[in-house]
Amino acid sequence: MKIHHVGIAVESLEKAVPMFELLLGHSPDSTEEVGDQKVRVAVFQVGESRIELLEPISPDSPIARFIAKRGPGIHHITLAVGNLQNTLDTLEQRGVRLIDRRPREGAGGESIAFLHPSSTANVLFELLEERDRKQADNNQEQQSK
Amino acid sequence: MKIHHVGIAVESLEKAVPMFELLLGHSPDSTEEVGDQKVRVAVFQVGESRIELLEPISPDSPIARFIAKRGPGIHHITLAVGNLQNTLDTLEQRGVRLIDRRPREGAGGESIAFLHPSSTANVLFELLEERDRKQADNNQEQQSK
Repeated sequence: MKIHHVGIAVESLEKAVPMFELLLGHSPDSTEEVGDQKVRVAVFQVGESRIELLEPISPDSPIARFIAKRGPGIHHITLAVGNLQNTLDTLEQRGVRLIDRRPREGAGGESIAFLHPSSTANVLFELLEERDRKQADNNQEQQSK
Repeated sequence: MKIHHVGIAVESLEKAVPMFELLLGHSPDSTEEVGDQKVRVAVFQVGESRIELLEPISPDSPIARFIAKRGPGIHHITLAVGNLQNTLDTLEQRGVRLIDRRPREGAGGESIAFLHPSSTANVLFELLEERDRKQADNNQEQQSK
């Protein structure tokens, strides 16, 4: 397990990116638009993790609603896990409240799921199964057939 | 550079730790009391980073004030940097607002400094120079004399 990324809600990438470039010592490694969440995202690799700045591109983006309610700031922490469905099942069995009981497709094609912050000290956690990991598992499964 | 830890303010370690044990799959790697900040801290190693749960042990702890104002949640992100004083000088020269202009001693004897969240999308960043890193630098400096 590792911290895959920390997602930070910002009002404007144009304003936020230069400050994070100073802080992190390099330009964003990528900038993409995630239609599903109605955000533009600037991704900074930091060690094995990423810092992702999330700018809403529509007033009905979840990030726009977050900013309207609380102002900019940390929106979620994403943990990379091995098998996401197994992890969700185990957590639910033990009383952790889930937002997503089944994995759904995230921005980069990975499987993701959110936990309900009421179980985790008000922190919104996302779990993510990395695509190459999943691919490797599938290959292994096929080979063992 | 790496994410050294994410600090999460919690009302009660007794309540929060079992949920994070489920989520992170193991018990805290350590639990300590940090007198300076008037907190008890449960530390979970997650890959190269840590998740630190911070419970105030006094009403005048900065974490108690944070919880009173906003409720539990993520309090700060800490980045491990090479030379902390150089980093602070560079950031200040380029207009980043600092809370600490000089490093001070953190919980584990490391040098730490906080940046002002107004420069970083409302996120409280702590910078930390790891002790072994500093030791190595000092040794190198002495050898080159």
